[in-house]
Amino acid sequence: MYRFECDYTEGAHPRILDALVKTNREQTPGYGEDEFSETARKIICLACGKEDMHVHFLMGGTQANTTVIASALRPHQAVVCAEQGHIAVHESGAIEATGHKVITLPSENGKITAAQVQKCIDAHFSDATHEHCPQPAMVYISHPTETGLIYTKQELRDLRRVCDEKHIPLFLDGARLGYALGSEENDVFMADLAKLCDVFYIGGTKVGAMFGEAVCICNEERNRDFRYHIKQHGGLLAKGRFLGIQFETLFKDGLYLDLGKNAVRQAMRIKDAFRSSGCDFLYDSPTNQQFPILNGAVLEELKKNYSFSIWQELPGDKTAVRFATSWATRPETVDALINDIKKTCRIYGDKTPSWSADMPE
Amino acid sequence: MYRFECDYTEGAHPRILDALVKTNREQTPGYGEDEFSETARKIICLACGKEDMHVHFLMGGTQANTTVIASALRPHQAVVCAEQGHIAVHESGAIEATGHKVITLPSENGKITAAQVQKCIDAHFSDATHEHCPQPAMVYISHPTETGLIYTKQELRDLRRVCDEKHIPLFLDGARLGYALGSEENDVFMADLAKLCDVFYIGGTKVGAMFGEAVCICNEERNRDFRYHIKQHGGLLAKGRFLGIQFETLFKDGLYLDLGKNAVRQAMRIKDAFRSSGCDFLYDSPTNQQFPILNGAVLEELKKNYSFSIWQELPGDKTAVRFATSWATRPETVDALINDIKKTCRIYGDKTPSWSADMPE
Amino acid sequence: MYRFECDYTEGAHPRILDALVKTNREQTPGYGEDEFSETARKIICLACGKEDMHVHFLMGGTQANTTVIASALRPHQAVVCAEQGHIAVHESGAIEATGHKVITLPSENGKITAAQVQKCIDAHFSDATHEHCPQPAMVYISHPTETGLIYTKQELRDLRRVCDEKHIPLFLDGARLGYALGSEENDVFMADLAKLCDVFYIGGTKVGAMFGEAVCICNEERNRDFRYHIKQHGGLLAKGRFLGIQFETLFKDGLYLDLGKNAVRQAMRIKDAFRSSGCDFLYDSPTNQQFPILNGAVLEELKKNYSFSIWQELPGDKTAVRFATSWATRPETVDALINDIKKTCRIYGDKTPSWSADMPE
Amino acid sequence: MYRFECDYTEGAHPRILDALVKTNREQTPGYGEDEFSETARKIICLACGKEDMHVHFLMGGTQANTTVIASALRPHQAVVCAEQGHIAVHESGAIEATGHKVITLPSENGKITAAQVQKCIDAHFSDATHEHCPQPAMVYISHPTETGLIYTKQELRDLRRVCDEKHIPLFLDGARLGYALGSEENDVFMADLAKLCDVFYIGGTKVGAMFGEAVCICNEERNRDFRYHIKQHGGLLAKGRFLGIQFETLFKDGLYLDLGKNAVRQAMRIKDAFRSSGCDFLYDSPTNQQFPILNGAVLEELKKNYSFSIWQELPGDKTAVRFATSWATRPETVDALINDIKKTCRIYGDKTPSWSADMPE
Repeated sequence: MYRFECDYTEGAHPRILDALVKTNREQTPGYGEDEFSETARKIICLACGKEDMHVHFLMGGTQANTTVIASALRPHQAVVCAEQGHIAVHESGAIEATGHKVITLPSENGKITAAQVQKCIDAHFSDATHEHCPQPAMVYISHPTETGLIYTKQELRDLRRVCDEKHIPLFLDGARLGYALGSEENDVFMADLAKLCDVFYIGGTKVGAMFGEAVCICNEERNRDFRYHIKQHGGLLAKGRFLGIQFETLFKDGLYLDLGKNAVRQAMRIKDAFRSSGCDFLYDSPTNQQFPILNGAVLEELKKNYSFSIWQELPGDKTAVRFATSWATRPETVDALINDIKKTCRIYGDKTPSWSADMPE
Repeated sequence: MYRFECDYTEGAHPRILDALVKTNREQTPGYGEDEFSETARKIICLACGKEDMHVHFLMGGTQANTTVIASALRPHQAVVCAEQGHIAVHESGAIEATGHKVITLPSENGKITAAQVQKCIDAHFSDATHEHCPQPAMVYISHPTETGLIYTKQELRDLRRVCDEKHIPLFLDGARLGYALGSEENDVFMADLAKLCDVFYIGGTKVGAMFGEAVCICNEERNRDFRYHIKQHGGLLAKGRFLGIQFETLFKDGLYLDLGKNAVRQAMRIKDAFRSSGCDFLYDSPTNQQFPILNGAVLEELKKNYSFSIWQELPGDKTAVRFATSWATRPETVDALINDIKKTCRIYGDKTPSWSADMPE
Repeated sequence: MYRFECDYTEGAHPRILDALVKTNREQTPGYGEDEFSETARKIICLACGKEDMHVHFLMGGTQANTTVIASALRPHQAVVCAEQGHIAVHESGAIEATGHKVITLPSENGKITAAQVQKCIDAHFSDATHEHCPQPAMVYISHPTETGLIYTKQELRDLRRVCDEKHIPLFLDGARLGYALGSEENDVFMADLAKLCDVFYIGGTKVGAMFGEAVCICNEERNRDFRYHIKQHGGLLAKGRFLGIQFETLFKDGLYLDLGKNAVRQAMRIKDAFRSSGCDFLYDSPTNQQFPILNGAVLEELKKNYSFSIWQELPGDKTAVRFATSWATRPETVDALINDIKKTCRIYGDKTPSWSADMPE
Repeated sequence: MYRFECDYTEGAHPRILDALVKTNREQTPGYGEDEFSETARKIICLACGKEDMHVHFLMGGTQANTTVIASALRPHQAVVCAEQGHIAVHESGAIEATGHKVITLPSENGKITAAQVQKCIDAHFSDATHEHCPQPAMVYISHPTETGLIYTKQELRDLRRVCDEKHIPLFLDGARLGYALGSEENDVFMADLAKLCDVFYIGGTKVGAMFGEAVCICNEERNRDFRYHIKQHGGLLAKGRFLGIQFETLFKDGLYLDLGKNAVRQAMRIKDAFRSSGCDFLYDSPTNQQFPILNGAVLEELKKNYSFSIWQELPGDKTAVRFATSWATRPETVDALINDIKKTCRIYGDKTPSWSADMPE
C-alpha cells in the first residue's frame, strides 16, 4: 500500500532533519528572535527581491489564515474567496470564530477573477442597505488553489488592480506554493508575489518541512503589532528556532524550488498515465495534485494497492479522486503506479470517456 | 555566555530527534490519526492509570489553554485563576479573544486556594445583580505555577471538592509538569491528575520536546467534538505524527520524569548556592525555576557571563531574577555558575539579607 | 406621497401609547423584573397554552437572533438557514461576530424543507473530514419568511422531526409573526409554535409596537442563564417595563391578532389589484408583504405617489418590488393605491405577463 | 414604599411621551434616517458647538459601550478603566465577548488619573515581552462615575494630553451625563466633551428618556462605517424616530439640563439630611447618587418605607447604601424622606460617626 492521498504523508526532507540535529545544542532566545530565524527571514526577503518585507514564521495554514485575516479586518468586515477556498470549507469556522463572515464567490475551478471581486464589492456599496450587510474588505486566494490550479501573472495583476481601486488588501495562501513555483506553466515568481500581494505565505508543511508557514507582509503599516496577533492565535513558538532552521534550509540552496519541481514532475507522469488511459480530469491541474475521474471498477481496483482521496461523486458511477505527490514521492513508486493505472484502465476503463468533453487532450 | 533565562533555549532531547529521524520515511495519515500518536496516547493513559482518558496533542501552551477554555465555556462564563496565571498575563488576550473574561484572584505566590475559589463563586451568586456579571465557571491553575511552586495533593483535592460542589471544571496547565513530577517535594502523580482534574495537559515544549502539549480530558462528555475545536484554533497539525513520536519517546521509558528530575537537581544546586551566599528568594521554589533576589552589584556582575530573566524590581536596589534549568543543563555548567555565584556574592553581596525575613532557611 | 416601503413607517398602535402614558408615574424595578413584564409573560404563556414557557423581552430582531443563537451554540457549531434568511443577509455579520458560521441552504422562495436540513446534516457527518468543517447545530427559519411566505403546520412538524432525530434545536424568527397569524392561509397557531419550536419569538416592532420582541424558550434547560446573555448583548433594558407594557397591551385583548388581520386584509386587496391588472409576483405571499413584478413604466409612474422597496432586478425591464402594509395602513389609502395601480397598469402595463408562467391565477 | 434604588424606576418625562404621541401617525424612513433624528443630531451638535460631530442614537448603555469599543480596537488591544468601571463590572462580559480585555486600574473612588493611564501604558511598552500582553489602546471613563463623582475640566485635559501622547482615544460614558451637567460643582460643559473626548455619549435612559443614548463621535475617521457596527450590535432601531424624537425633546428647550439640575437638587437635600444626622458617606458625590453609610438599625428602619440599593458591606455593622434621585423625584417625597432620616438617625444613629474620618464636612 502506497499513500498518494495527500502531500504530508511522510516526515520532513532529510536536509531539514540534519539541520535540526546539527544545531540542537546551541542556545538561542525564544519566540522567533533567534539568529536562525533572522537568517531565514533575510534569505526569503532576498528571494523576493524585497529587503523591507516582514517575514513571520507560523506553525500551520489555518493559524496563518486566521492570524492574517483577523489582524487585518475591522469587526464589520468580511473576506472574499472562492467557494472552494480553504478558509470557507476546511478550517472548522476558524475565520468566523474571529468574528468575520467569509463571502464566497461561485467558481467552476477554485479560482476567482478580478471581475468577480469587483462586481461583489460594487454590489455591496450600491445596495442602499449595505450597512446591514458585512462589508467585503479583503480578497483571499490560494496559489495553487485547493483544486491544483495556478493563477497567471496577468490574473494576479488584475486582482491587484481591483484591490487597489477598492482599497482592500490581497492575501495569497501559498500553503502549496512550492508546487506552483515548480510547475512548468507557472509565470508567477516570488518577487511577483511580493509586488502584487499585501500579504502572502510560503507553505512549509506541505512542501517538505515538518511544519511551518512563512507569512510575508509586504507593507510596513500592515505589519504593525503583528506579533501580538501571532501570540494571541497561539503561533509564537517558544522554540521558534525550529521554524527558522527549517526555512533557512528550504531557501538557502534552492531546496524549496527543487522539491516543488520534483513533486510536479512525478505528478505530470501520473497525469499522463491517466490521460493516455482515457481518463478525464475534474480539474486540469499543472501542479502536484491530480484529479482524475474514475469509474467504480477502476477505483476499486486501484484502491487495492494505493490510497488516494475521494474528491467528488459524479453522475454515472464516476468519481473524481485526488492523487498528490510530494518531495518524498520516489520515481520508482510512480513507475509502479503508472503500470497499474494502465493495466487497470485497459481492463476496467470506459472506452469512451465523455463526462467532460471540453477537457483539453 | 550561558543562558539560564528560560527552559527552552536549546533544541529537543536527542532521543526525540533520533526517533524523528528513524521514522521519517514512513507514511502515515495526517492530523493525529497515525499510529505513533495512537501509541503515545495509550502510553500516557497507562501512565495515568486511566484507560478511557482522551489525549490530544497540541502545539503550544497558549493554543492548549485557548482551545480547552473556549471549548468548555458558554459565552457568559469566565475562567478563574491567580493574578499571575499565564492566561491572565502572557497570552496577549487569547482567552478574551474567544469571548471570555479571565477573573483573577489575588495571590502572594501564584497559587490559589479552594477557599478563594469558593468565596469568588459564592460572591457571584449571592450578588442580586449577578446576571450583569460574567459567571465564574472554570478554575485554571498551573502546576508548577509561573512562580515555580507546586500544589500538594491535599490542595488539589480541596480544589476538586469545591469544583464538584459548584459543578465547574478544574483545568490544570502543566506546561512545566515534568518539573513538578521531578521535584522531591511533589506528592501529586500522573494518576492523581487524571483523578482530580477535568482537563490537564502535559507540557512537552518546556520539558525536552521540540514543541507539543498533551491535553488529557478526563471525562467523556467534555471530550465531545474536541477535535473540531483543535482544528478551529489551528492546532490540528497536518503531520501530527511529529507530536505522537515525541510524546511516545518522552513517555515510553520514563524519559519525561528523568528530564524533570535532572533539571530540578541542577536547580536545587543553584538555589543552595544563592541561599548559602546570603540571598533571599522571591518564591521558595522546589522546581526548575529559581527566583533569587540580587542587589545591583551582584546582578551586574553575574550578567557578564550568564543570561537570566529580570523578574521584578524590589525596593532598595534589589531585583528578583529568574534562573531556569532544563533537560539540557549540564552539571559542569552549573558548577561554574555556582562558583561565580559564591565568588560574586562574597565580594558584592549584602551581609545581612533582610528583604524577606520569613523565608524558610 | 404614501409610504408602503416597510411595516415600520409609523409609530406605535395608539393603545400602546395610551398604556405607556397611563402607567408612566408608577415605580417599578428595572431590567424586566417589574409586574407589567410579569403579567405580559403570563398572558403570552396562556396564549401559547404552555405555562412553563420562558418569555424574555428584547429590543429588536437582530438582538434577539444574536442572543438566542450565541447562547445555544458551542464555538465549532453553525446555524443553518435559507439563503434569504435575515441572519445570513441583513444583520451586518452579527452572527459571525459571535463566532458562528451561518450555513445557507439554496431556496427558491425563502423557505427550507426538512429534507434539505436532513441532507445538510447527513452530508456533514458522513464527510470523513467533518471535524475540519463547522458543524450544523441549529435550524433557523422565519415565519413569515423574508419573502412573505408561511410554513404549514405539516412543514413545521417535519422540521421538528429532523431536529429531534439530529438532536439540534429549531429556532423560529417571528419578527412578523402577527402577519402569519393574521393570514387566512395560516394553520400554525401560537400553541403549535410552543410545541414545535425550541425557541421562537413574537415580533413587536413590525406589528404595532414601538419596539420589542418576545423571545419564548420552550424548555427549561435552554433557558438556563439566558438573562446573562441578554445583558451581554445589550438587551436588558433598564426600564424594562416599557417592553412589558407593550406586550401586555398587544396580547391581553387580542390586539396582536387584530393588527395582523387588518394588515393582511389590506395587503390582499393590493395583491388583487396587481393581479387583476396583469402583474405577476415574485413570491405568492399570503401575508402583509407583496412582491409584484412591474415594468419600468409602471414602476416610474407609481413612484410618483408612493414609496415602496426595490426588491430584485429581473430580466426584460422588469423589477420585483415590495409593498408592505401594517397596523397603520388605512383602507382609504389602499383604495387610492388600488385606483392608481389599475389606472397605471391599464396605460403602461404589459398585455401579456409572462415572466413567471406557473404563478397561480 | 418609595423607590430610591436607582434613577430608572419611573417611565419617561411627560414631554417626551407627548412628543411621541403627537408625531405617532407621521410616516418616516427607518433606522435613524428620519427627520426627527436628523433634527436631534443638529441640536446636539449645536449644544456641543461642533457642527461636524457625528451623532448616533443607540438603545442602551451596554450596547453603546460595546459598539464604541469594539469598533475602535484591533483584536490585540484592550481598554483601560477604573476597577469600578461599568464595562469592567456590570456588563456580563460584553466587552470580552467582542474579544477585548478590560484592563482595570485601582481606584479609591471610581475615577482614574492621567498619571495612572500614563504609567499603565509606559509599563506595557517598556516590558520586553509586551507582545505577549494585551495592548492598552483606549481609555474609558464614566462621567459621572458609577460612584457619583465627576471629573474636573483640568482632569479631563490631563487625560486628553496623555491620550494624545500615546495616540489612543478617550471615550467617556455619559450614561448619567445630565447629573454631571446639573451639578453645581461641574465645570465640564458639552462643548468641553466635544473638544476633549474622541467619543462620548449622552445618556437618555437614566435622565428622563424611555431609553436611548446619543453617541457623539468627534472625528471623521473614527466615524467611518460606524453604522455597520451599530447594526451588528443590534442597535439600529427599525423605528429609529423614537430615539430622535426623544433626544429632540430633551435638547431643544434645555429640558435635559433642567432634569439634571432638579434631580441633583433633591439629591443634595438628601445628602444634607444624612450628613446633619451624623452619617458618613462612602463617596462625596455632588450628583444624583448618594452613598450614605448606615448602621444596621438605621438601615432596617429606613427599609420599611423606602427602597434603596445595598452598595457595600463595611466593617462594624456598617453598610454603604445608594439613594438615587431622578427627573421624577418630587420635592414632597424628599421632604418625607428627610423627616424620616432625621428621626431615624436621632433614635438609632451612632453618636460618633467614625468610619471615614477624613470625609469633608
